Amino acid sequence: MIVDSAIYENGVRRDGQVQLEHAYDERRRPGKFVWIGLYEPTEEEFESLSREFELHPLAVEDAIEAHQRPKLEVYGEMLLLVLKTARYVDPTEVIELGEVVVFLGPDYVITVRHGEASSLHPVREALDADPERLRKGPGAVLHALLDLVVDDYQPAIEGLENDIDEVEEELFSGDRTNPAERIYRLQREVLGFRKATAPLVDPLERLASGHFEMIHPEIREYFRDVNDHLIRARDQLDAMRDLLAGSLQANLAQVGVRQNEDMRRISAWVAIIAVPTAIAGIYGMNFEHMPELRWELGYPAALLAMLVICAALYRYFKRVGWL
Amino acid sequence: MIVDSAIYENGVRRDGQVQLEHAYDERRRPGKFVWIGLYEPTEEEFESLSREFELHPLAVEDAIEAHQRPKLEVYGEMLLLVLKTARYVDPTEVIELGEVVVFLGPDYVITVRHGEASSLHPVREALDADPERLRKGPGAVLHALLDLVVDDYQPAIEGLENDIDEVEEELFSGDRTNPAERIYRLQREVLGFRKATAPLVDPLERLASGHFEMIHPEIREYFRDVNDHLIRARDQLDAMRDLLAGSLQANLAQVGVRQNEDMRRISAWVAIIAVPTAIAGIYGMNFEHMPELRWELGYPAALLAMLVICAALYRYFKRVGWL
Amino acid sequence: MIVDSAIYENGVRRDGQVQLEHAYDERRRPGKFVWIGLYEPTEEEFESLSREFELHPLAVEDAIEAHQRPKLEVYGEMLLLVLKTARYVDPTEVIELGEVVVFLGPDYVITVRHGEASSLHPVREALDADPERLRKGPGAVLHALLDLVVDDYQPAIEGLENDIDEVEEELFSGDRTNPAERIYRLQREVLGFRKATAPLVDPLERLASGHFEMIHPEIREYFRDVNDHLIRARDQLDAMRDLLAGSLQANLAQVGVRQNEDMRRISAWVAIIAVPTAIAGIYGMNFEHMPELRWELGYPAALLAMLVICAALYRYFKRVGWL
Amino acid sequence: MIVDSAIYENGVRRDGQVQLEHAYDERRRPGKFVWIGLYEPTEEEFESLSREFELHPLAVEDAIEAHQRPKLEVYGEMLLLVLKTARYVDPTEVIELGEVVVFLGPDYVITVRHGEASSLHPVREALDADPERLRKGPGAVLHALLDLVVDDYQPAIEGLENDIDEVEEELFSGDRTNPAERIYRLQREVLGFRKATAPLVDPLERLASGHFEMIHPEIREYFRDVNDHLIRARDQLDAMRDLLAGSLQANLAQVGVRQNEDMRRISAWVAIIAVPTAIAGIYGMNFEHMPELRWELGYPAALLAMLVICAALYRYFKRVGWL
Amino acid sequence: MIVDSAIYENGVRRDGQVQLEHAYDERRRPGKFVWIGLYEPTEEEFESLSREFELHPLAVEDAIEAHQRPKLEVYGEMLLLVLKTARYVDPTEVIELGEVVVFLGPDYVITVRHGEASSLHPVREALDADPERLRKGPGAVLHALLDLVVDDYQPAIEGLENDIDEVEEELFSGDRTNPAERIYRLQREVLGFRKATAPLVDPLERLASGHFEMIHPEIREYFRDVNDHLIRARDQLDAMRDLLAGSLQANLAQVGVRQNEDMRRISAWVAIIAVPTAIAGIYGMNFEHMPELRWELGYPAALLAMLVICAALYRYFKRVGWL
Repeated sequence: MIVDSAIYENGVRRDGQVQLEHAYDERRRPGKFVWIGLYEPTEEEFESLSREFELHPLAVEDAIEAHQRPKLEVYGEMLLLVLKTARYVDPTEVIELGEVVVFLGPDYVITVRHGEASSLHPVREALDADPERLRKGPGAVLHALLDLVVDDYQPAIEGLENDIDEVEEELFSGDRTNPAERIYRLQREVLGFRKATAPLVDPLERLASGHFEMIHPEIREYFRDVNDHLIRARDQLDAMRDLLAGSLQANLAQVGVRQNEDMRRISAWVAIIAVPTAIAGIYGMNFEHMPELRWELGYPAALLAMLVICAALYRYFKRVGWL
Repeated sequence: MIVDSAIYENGVRRDGQVQLEHAYDERRRPGKFVWIGLYEPTEEEFESLSREFELHPLAVEDAIEAHQRPKLEVYGEMLLLVLKTARYVDPTEVIELGEVVVFLGPDYVITVRHGEASSLHPVREALDADPERLRKGPGAVLHALLDLVVDDYQPAIEGLENDIDEVEEELFSGDRTNPAERIYRLQREVLGFRKATAPLVDPLERLASGHFEMIHPEIREYFRDVNDHLIRARDQLDAMRDLLAGSLQANLAQVGVRQNEDMRRISAWVAIIAVPTAIAGIYGMNFEHMPELRWELGYPAALLAMLVICAALYRYFKRVGWL
Repeated sequence: MIVDSAIYENGVRRDGQVQLEHAYDERRRPGKFVWIGLYEPTEEEFESLSREFELHPLAVEDAIEAHQRPKLEVYGEMLLLVLKTARYVDPTEVIELGEVVVFLGPDYVITVRHGEASSLHPVREALDADPERLRKGPGAVLHALLDLVVDDYQPAIEGLENDIDEVEEELFSGDRTNPAERIYRLQREVLGFRKATAPLVDPLERLASGHFEMIHPEIREYFRDVNDHLIRARDQLDAMRDLLAGSLQANLAQVGVRQNEDMRRISAWVAIIAVPTAIAGIYGMNFEHMPELRWELGYPAALLAMLVICAALYRYFKRVGWL
Repeated sequence: MIVDSAIYENGVRRDGQVQLEHAYDERRRPGKFVWIGLYEPTEEEFESLSREFELHPLAVEDAIEAHQRPKLEVYGEMLLLVLKTARYVDPTEVIELGEVVVFLGPDYVITVRHGEASSLHPVREALDADPERLRKGPGAVLHALLDLVVDDYQPAIEGLENDIDEVEEELFSGDRTNPAERIYRLQREVLGFRKATAPLVDPLERLASGHFEMIHPEIREYFRDVNDHLIRARDQLDAMRDLLAGSLQANLAQVGVRQNEDMRRISAWVAIIAVPTAIAGIYGMNFEHMPELRWELGYPAALLAMLVICAALYRYFKRVGWL
Repeated sequence: MIVDSAIYENGVRRDGQVQLEHAYDERRRPGKFVWIGLYEPTEEEFESLSREFELHPLAVEDAIEAHQRPKLEVYGEMLLLVLKTARYVDPTEVIELGEVVVFLGPDYVITVRHGEASSLHPVREALDADPERLRKGPGAVLHALLDLVVDDYQPAIEGLENDIDEVEEELFSGDRTNPAERIYRLQREVLGFRKATAPLVDPLERLASGHFEMIHPEIREYFRDVNDHLIRARDQLDAMRDLLAGSLQANLAQVGVRQNEDMRRISAWVAIIAVPTAIAGIYGMNFEHMPELRWELGYPAALLAMLVICAALYRYFKRVGWL
């Protein structure tokens, strides 16, 4: 599905949408480029584009099928960049990953979006309002896009960090819950997120070090800045992974300690109930000569003794922390 | 065993099978090459081939004995590539590995297959129908083969991922099973699969960067694409390995927690049965002066007391979650 | 907020504070440079500076927003260095991280400080008293600053090491505490601190190997010295991380051993109380022919037997270490 | 001790043993080289050799004292190679390591063997029967030796793999054994074996890439083949290490699960025996008005009730898997 | 404190100690160099030296303050090497680390020792007796020193290995001890020792590859030999670290298994004592019609039954290994 297509001349957008065929004609003139945005296109929808822009069949395949890993590839004078977008979904505590594929040529940008994770509309709007940047050509679009995508990693990471904080609190609270499942699921999210972001570091470095002609030299420093944010995100994910591994270990200790506490509590109650049983057993013996049995107050005295001993044990166990 | 042998002229297959001797004569003419497919050949079956194509004895040894690690080697103007094929066998949850050895010369391809994992027949069929590709020479065969083999990794990985999902569900369900063995066995499969795939990344990179004459320049980009899929497979296997390590840890916590739950349940029942025993003990004492013993309703009252206390305890333990 | 601004001429500070505008005029003369110190500036406060010194907008952004990772970047003939300061806060056992951003040009240094972690005032004072060093230009300021920041890591590391020593003692003392939470929190501090320091090693190496014109060649060796301290800090943090991982493991064993000890103690008491109960049960049987029941001393003998057996068991359990 | 010494002329061995002095004279003639084999020589035994071949004192020291790590060193036009031989000793499940030191010059090979692990005699025999190979000079001897040593790793690795399979079976069988010690000891063997083999990969690569004059160019490819086997061995050892780490973890879960099973079984029996005790307690009460006590069939009915309840409980526990 | 200072002329020591001033004059003549040894010098003691030899202030600082990490630095034509000496202290099972700083110039060696770990006296004595080596200049002293220091690592490592062997035995013996603390402390020693040795590998490689003029070319090979020993030490420490991590894990299993054994033993005794209690309870019931109660031999028969059942249970539990 074609979402938006426009011709930019000296950084200024020509009014409204343009027909693809029209775009094809115009783009070759100096100072002009087209930007075509698609959403989960079918092979048929893509055909005209790939013919016009002479896209490499392998690149087209990457754009139509999602589930690529992030990468940067050069086909002749075209760049192909595959990115993952990320969005934190709070109720289920998962990172929803989307995919953006960008074809970058000297006079065109084609962006293909998969999944709902993040719309590219804000990028388009921001750029349309900044002809200064757009004048630097399609590379400016690529940077704006990368900037949005990588900046969007931060709230997702913060969502995970928040979850980790909650898990930590749960872990060391007295609530006796077992956050093993939650820790494990967070670990899975962190691993998945890392896999979606870390492979992008190297492509961004190549963009920043700038050996690509279609990218205006002044924009290169901006790619370095984006990469900086990306590396920070990766480092944060690495630290999270280590923390979660540690918290799984700590959880084991918590589980063990709690079991111990329960065992003590149970044992204390067993001891408390065992004593009257033993006393009752003694006075249940059938010896003929048991003077206490004949005492008028023998029975209440025995009951009292049971009570006193139980109370004393109870206080003792309270004091040593078993109850 | 020779499975198939054919002569290709300008990308078109000569009808039917050809005799080896015939193939030897023809291949040297420009625009022609032979493709000979073997299945677990014996040393004798291989002799004629190795004489005709002047195969290096070490390369021949690699082709006849299976259990090599994936590798790419150059002997003069011949390339030797060893690949592992993988197939997921669902009932036993194992990855069955096979082996394909490819000899690639300027005018010949010899493919040697070991194990049942995957037939190369579909590659042959697809190529026979695409003279355009075959016209680029034996390198096209190599690419088609690698493409098939690496694409076949994906369903195997998905099989493992599915198993991991199942294990996760089992792990955190209330079913109180112990998936330690299953996790361990999956770990072994993942490690074994990784060992069979990861060493191939480097050879593929060398094929893609293209310093080999017998590979047509236009095919190089396709090797890069295959490598992309391979790296993705490797990354997935790495993430699985980490996940499985985490799930072994989580399983420990689950085992501990379950033990704790059992202990509580058991203890609750012990407490419930200890109380009537204690009461019975008290009224089993032989004091002469125990007024209750003489009451008409003493006995039913005692039974009632036991029942009430047991019921109260039962409700209490239900409420605090011990039962 | 501008904290301090001064003009240095041949390494000597001109008296008092100077107005920014005045500084702008003077700095260009040979042998002079300005040093402007800011604390958490707003974008507005920074505007005049960035105009005068032609600071790159990306660099300015880095200076205003905190939470960058340590890095060294080159913009034309300006260096941008982002550092993390660290301070150990004893009562809460956390590492408080601050941030210092340094802009270094041929005739200016701008230092921007975020967070309370450490004041740069001592650097300024020490340098003002050492014209010899300042004569080597802005690079000397950069070195003095790095030296202070990196030297400040050491007390923070020692604070953590002290905590680890305490945790170790707690772990292996007989106190039966569960330091899992403390170990985990220390792990988090160590990971966080490492993330703030380790990425600085590479920039410092680049400063030491000296390809930057604005840094006087004689100062380069000093950067190597600073880096040496930094690498030592990183190595210490790595060793701490490994130690803490080990102590989490050791803690698990301690928890298990303690549980075992409790179980033995409890069991010993259960055994001690079970014996008189059994004896009482025996003499509570209603057989007609039980000679002991008729003995005059039957009852005291039974009580004595109970006592003796309990005492013997008690001594036995004491001896084998269960009590 | 000199084990064997021979002169080879155009690849053919001169009959019988030769005197060292004689060997010294002959070797310098073109097409000839000597091969001297020693077994744990003393310093005195080595003196004549080191004088004649002008061996570097450090190299001599390495040859006389065992316990070196595998390495390749160049002294002038002499190569020194230190290898570890490995043999799996089944009854004790250990890898017995030996050491072979090879001095390789343009016209001599000196092999020094330490430990019993593997005799070099088969190499000598095989080479004596293959003048074609020997004609390529001392390098052919080096290759044959390396080939034998590295091929001998495979049965040792298979021995360990076999042990690991056994441990796995033990681990997940119902036998309730604790293979922790065995796993640990295997881990130690794997680590020790890896330390003995992995450092050899780099030297072999250097031999294969072939910058050493004393090695005939045609042999270089053979070194690559040996290295291939070595890398495979190293990868196998790495995978084993990972597997054993996983099995230690899985063992923990098994231990926990078994404890849980035991606890359930014990608890079930406690419950079964607690019920008759409670009933007996009830009918042991001394109330005057307990109608059941007067029933003719009261006693057998009570016994029956006990039996029935115990049987019901037994069946119940069987069904839920606690017994 | 100056420990020893001497002038060497053509490798021969001038008799006795020399005054520093005297040494300063003489050293510049060809074929001469001075070797000054210090022990924990104060800044004042060092002043004359640093003036005379024009030592870089940063290098002097490193020499006076201990607690540097091992490193090699070049200041003009002077080399600065920082080493760690190690000594195993058996009673406390710790590695005591000392520090040696070496300044190496074309005609001087200054050695500064910190800590008691190892005296350099043996080096001095050995060299004084070997003018051949000393003739090669100060580099020979550096080699001799490194050789001693690195050789001293071996007994320390063996001390640790011995401890690990003891811990292993303790771990898998039936002694039911908990070596967690000992394992943890060994881990700390191994980590600390590794941190003191591993960073030296790189400097030694640089010394061996020989780009330093003040080191005689013939000595370079000797540095390679020292490095070999160092790498071996590092590898041993790495393997120890892995082994200790494994033994912490194995210890967890041992603790769990022991707990299980205790639980079984306890449970067996509970069962043994529960049976007579139940039987006694039955014959303690007050039914009027219990024929056994009237039997003459009822009581001894009941006692016998109890005894027989207890003995049978005891034998059963012995047989299944619970007792």
